[in-house]
Amino acid sequence: MSNYEGKPRFSLPVRVYYEDTDAASVVYYTNYLKFMERARTEWLRSLGFELDALKLYEGLLFVVRQAEIAYLRPALFNDLLTVTVDPCGHGGASMDLVQKVYRQADATLCCRGRIKVTCMDKKTLRPKRIPERISAEIVDVR
Amino acid sequence: MSNYEGKPRFSLPVRVYYEDTDAASVVYYTNYLKFMERARTEWLRSLGFELDALKLYEGLLFVVRQAEIAYLRPALFNDLLTVTVDPCGHGGASMDLVQKVYRQADATLCCRGRIKVTCMDKKTLRPKRIPERISAEIVDVR
Amino acid sequence: MSNYEGKPRFSLPVRVYYEDTDAASVVYYTNYLKFMERARTEWLRSLGFELDALKLYEGLLFVVRQAEIAYLRPALFNDLLTVTVDPCGHGGASMDLVQKVYRQADATLCCRGRIKVTCMDKKTLRPKRIPERISAEIVDVR
Amino acid sequence: MSNYEGKPRFSLPVRVYYEDTDAASVVYYTNYLKFMERARTEWLRSLGFELDALKLYEGLLFVVRQAEIAYLRPALFNDLLTVTVDPCGHGGASMDLVQKVYRQADATLCCRGRIKVTCMDKKTLRPKRIPERISAEIVDVR
Repeated sequence: MSNYEGKPRFSLPVRVYYEDTDAASVVYYTNYLKFMERARTEWLRSLGFELDALKLYEGLLFVVRQAEIAYLRPALFNDLLTVTVDPCGHGGASMDLVQKVYRQADATLCCRGRIKVTCMDKKTLRPKRIPERISAEIVDVR
Repeated sequence: MSNYEGKPRFSLPVRVYYEDTDAASVVYYTNYLKFMERARTEWLRSLGFELDALKLYEGLLFVVRQAEIAYLRPALFNDLLTVTVDPCGHGGASMDLVQKVYRQADATLCCRGRIKVTCMDKKTLRPKRIPERISAEIVDVR
Repeated sequence: MSNYEGKPRFSLPVRVYYEDTDAASVVYYTNYLKFMERARTEWLRSLGFELDALKLYEGLLFVVRQAEIAYLRPALFNDLLTVTVDPCGHGGASMDLVQKVYRQADATLCCRGRIKVTCMDKKTLRPKRIPERISAEIVDVR
Repeated sequence: MSNYEGKPRFSLPVRVYYEDTDAASVVYYTNYLKFMERARTEWLRSLGFELDALKLYEGLLFVVRQAEIAYLRPALFNDLLTVTVDPCGHGGASMDLVQKVYRQADATLCCRGRIKVTCMDKKTLRPKRIPERISAEIVDVR
């Protein structure tokens, strides 16, 4: 439960600030989902896809449809975290990602999530095929 | 997918403010989890349990250990929502809750979650038996 | 510093949940501004103005342009607060509001703000005259 | 209003994610205060001071007592921002900071704040002298 398992496809360092914590002195439970979204955004950017351009020029939104989160160990104020992204499958209009949040200091796995993201037309809000350029990046993952 | 199914055990009205929305003009996906926690807190209060008193006088914290969330329809700015709490099982130190978020205007089910909450000792951060007075309230649910 | 001074024009009860607190075990300092916006929104609603309708049908946005906040006493998890709205002046396209956050249990004044809100055209994002129906409500305040 | 004026004492790049925006498609107004706190935290870290260590080993908290914020131009989703910190005065237990938020792409000044931070004893919550090692860093600023 507490060590990196294989090299993640993408990872982002995230610092825990006061804004992220709650009165139990740990990271507030919804904020891991924020961290995971930051990492997804930076993963797509690393592949050459900017979410604002996809929305503006191609009318595409990426929307979370399902999330399964396991909270394993609390992350604390001032912790430096690593948030990973591992695509683990995709359909025509959706992709599945495994995401993990580790504390860097001791490689503790704090939180693990499985996220289903759907590509949608921003006008109709209906599912739309993920652009080939993106699915090509994730098709060979596992 | 769009109508109330039976009377929930507890429900809380929640208004959507600007703080809850994002640039896609919908409720930001982590915020449904905030709404669900507000409803859990008010449900416990309705049973006579104040979380600050449980922490201070009995050294107990209630911590989310797992969350499975399905995002079904977007809730929008200014929507009045109903957030429900239905306990659906418990072990010695944990309880499972089904929670739903409806838009009041048209009874659309926007979001559905299954949440596992664990009772912990605030000092050791180890699981601790849910007080009888609380489990007695949920034991007969289903 | 610690008692209600005169009857506020409008007030809203707000409960402090875990989401609002930080690791110093107090309400995180930006969240008082969220509470104040909730109260402004409900104040306008009490006057018959819905922000989503003003945006959709009249193309108007209300945007905070200045905020001066004094943090006086910390509010805590589970506190029940009263958030007030007192209009204290307006120009053609803007209005000034004094807002206070009290703890209900002991009437402690936790936070005091002075907020300047500007009415803007949602397309041009330029200042636009506050609708007469609204300014009529605030013109006679002081 | 729109260009860097002099070199700031410290600056931090901050990316705008969905979590930071609202349904008006701009950064939600309280979130500039979060960005400013991130920059203050990193500024202190750059000077060798970790807030968690100051709390744990010296019993010190740094608490915002006053904030004056001017919202000048909206920052947008996906913007890369620069958040600056310029100490501009200090008393025994408090320090004043000017903080600005610029959009990097066009050097637009989006938001400007003046923040008073007080050093407090974490137990008594009373003001306490800022450690010499810190005030020495800011005494010669202006």
